[in-house]
Amino acid sequence: SKTYRIAVIPGDGIGVEVMPEALRTLDVVSKRFDIDFEYQHIEWASCDYYLKHGKMMPDDWKQQLSSVDAILFGAVGWPATVPDHISLWGSLLKFRREFDQYINLRPARLFEGVPCPLANRKAGDIDFMIVRENTEGEYSSVGGVMYEGTEREVVMQQSIFSRFGTERVLKFAFDLAQRREKKITVATKSNGIAISMPWWDARAAEVAALYPEVAVDKQHIDILCARFVMSPDRFDVVVASNLFGDILSDLGPACTGTIGLAPSGNLNPERKFPSLFEPVHGSAPDIAGKNIANPVAMIWSAAMMVDFLGGNVAGPERDAHDAIVAAIEDVLKHGPHTGDLGGKASTTEVGRAISERL
Amino acid sequence: SKTYRIAVIPGDGIGVEVMPEALRTLDVVSKRFDIDFEYQHIEWASCDYYLKHGKMMPDDWKQQLSSVDAILFGAVGWPATVPDHISLWGSLLKFRREFDQYINLRPARLFEGVPCPLANRKAGDIDFMIVRENTEGEYSSVGGVMYEGTEREVVMQQSIFSRFGTERVLKFAFDLAQRREKKITVATKSNGIAISMPWWDARAAEVAALYPEVAVDKQHIDILCARFVMSPDRFDVVVASNLFGDILSDLGPACTGTIGLAPSGNLNPERKFPSLFEPVHGSAPDIAGKNIANPVAMIWSAAMMVDFLGGNVAGPERDAHDAIVAAIEDVLKHGPHTGDLGGKASTTEVGRAISERL
Ligand SMILES: CC(C)[C@H](C(=O)O)[C@@H](O)C(=O)O
Ligand SMILES: CC(C)[C@H](C(=O)O)[C@@H](O)C(=O)O
Repeated sequence: SKTYRIAVIPGDGIGVEVMPEALRTLDVVSKRFDIDFEYQHIEWASCDYYLKHGKMMPDDWKQQLSSVDAILFGAVGWPATVPDHISLWGSLLKFRREFDQYINLRPARLFEGVPCPLANRKAGDIDFMIVRENTEGEYSSVGGVMYEGTEREVVMQQSIFSRFGTERVLKFAFDLAQRREKKITVATKSNGIAISMPWWDARAAEVAALYPEVAVDKQHIDILCARFVMSPDRFDVVVASNLFGDILSDLGPACTGTIGLAPSGNLNPERKFPSLFEPVHGSAPDIAGKNIANPVAMIWSAAMMVDFLGGNVAGPERDAHDAIVAAIEDVLKHGPHTGDLGGKASTTEVGRAISERL
Repeated sequence: SKTYRIAVIPGDGIGVEVMPEALRTLDVVSKRFDIDFEYQHIEWASCDYYLKHGKMMPDDWKQQLSSVDAILFGAVGWPATVPDHISLWGSLLKFRREFDQYINLRPARLFEGVPCPLANRKAGDIDFMIVRENTEGEYSSVGGVMYEGTEREVVMQQSIFSRFGTERVLKFAFDLAQRREKKITVATKSNGIAISMPWWDARAAEVAALYPEVAVDKQHIDILCARFVMSPDRFDVVVASNLFGDILSDLGPACTGTIGLAPSGNLNPERKFPSLFEPVHGSAPDIAGKNIANPVAMIWSAAMMVDFLGGNVAGPERDAHDAIVAAIEDVLKHGPHTGDLGGKASTTEVGRAISERL
């Protein structure tokens, strides 16, 4: 049997509460599919750690993680004590950058049992993947303030896109589209953002030429957001820059009622560095500490991790992934449900229910 | 009776078809409320003009418009012959910049008779205003490409925010909030965009301190987009940067089913330069030339113009605005409807119906 080494980083807030449910699920699939997980439990990459040590992670964090196959991540952020741009840039965004996790992959899918905020949509109608560039673009720390404190004060912020970084995310997305419905939506804003976005369009056109069977639909981000609401059924694979992907991958799940259920993979497809799997929902300070958070996004993220560890091909890892997703579907349909879905069950109860269905 | 000089710029595509309906409406209110409009009909700021002259507007465009009180604008863009970044930067974005129309004001409102893509929402539930910065920020033409054509190729794009430009849009929005429900949502992305957005937050905090009665809700753009779908009833005034405002002001109307109905004002509140009023929908090449476009957004934009000309206070202009909006509400409720609302009426028929209800 195979053994995978997993770094377990619960982080802050509800991250700490949903993580045990993911581990509970992994225990079950480990036995059932004969896959071994060896855990490295990590307390840093949390605001508690920051308050004690003045930094989010120890200096040798990379070394400490040098032998892991993947990172299972809860959520980071506790703005009451540590500003978000410190906690996030000091942990999550550092992983994405320094482990070159240049793909952020996020599904949007409508499930039975989950109330949908859109009218007249039923399970099966919405099922698409958002491929977000995850290491460059609009998320940069290049820039600064000039004439500070005067009336002439001005702040500049660079967006920086490399050909290397842009081509590889486009290729990943076109590959995915090729394996799915052979159609792709490319998010842009070349009619307003006059330098980088026409350049992005040119890269997309070049990559598209390599995939003649894939139908390409280029959409400006403003109307694209509108279309997520008006016709979410028309999408299959959507590729976007860091910022646009961030927006679309909250909006997509919101349109399916699953913003609290959405998982994500921060992938280094070449497997040169560990990839990181985390729920989209964040640390949710408002409901933290009450054992009421929905653990589905965390558990689904663990499933994505297992599939990725198996190379995203047929095998026990793929079977384990499919079994977890089926158990999630079943619990979403029949309950128990946490408060966000109108139920009264605790985090633990929902986590246990998913493990039992497995 | 007062006389206002209006520049009429139909532009491209359906702009040309909806404009006559706005003028028809203005004729009616002109008589009924004793307000005179003097029109200056303009053929430039269109792609046809570009194809003939190699530029979107004549060199003396500013001079030609020097005595107008406002600009009524259809839509510009015909990507089949002129790339969007040429047509738009050469006309609409030039007006916004050079006439210092630093506010883009866009309502999102749910009407009776308009199918809403959200479940369980009824007329009256959604009614908010988006205040978008309209002259700077992410829409810049500062930047460029380095190492072109090599593997090291990189493109840089500056976002540029000035204290002057940021404070004035925030103050406009807080003033509006003060006159409405005394609550405001400030869009940001300071957890990801590490230089300009924390700076934007600081400006928002400073301006907020001047309006102690206004409750402030700061939201990152990703979750804010999600909340437009999940709880659109909670918003009243939303203020955002150029890019975020662009996104939100397509998404907001989409959530009310009115993306084709939404009007906008590009305002120079000091009235040093003419303000510009235009439908949000754009030139819509796919349905152009068929007389099937919905003229409501254009007519509603004309109503916003009249109210603005009257100083947004009680008076015949405000009455004219209210009468036009009431006529629109009535036609939306009882028909006739264009194809986008499931009807079969033409642009002209709907325009006539609105004039008749007046
Ligand atoms: C056409 C485009 C440049 C413009 C913008 O992004 O400002 C449009 O989307 C708008 O919102 O008025
Ligand atoms: C917390 C924040 C920096 C992060 C992002 O914007 O990338 C989050 O919104 C996400 O989508 O993972």
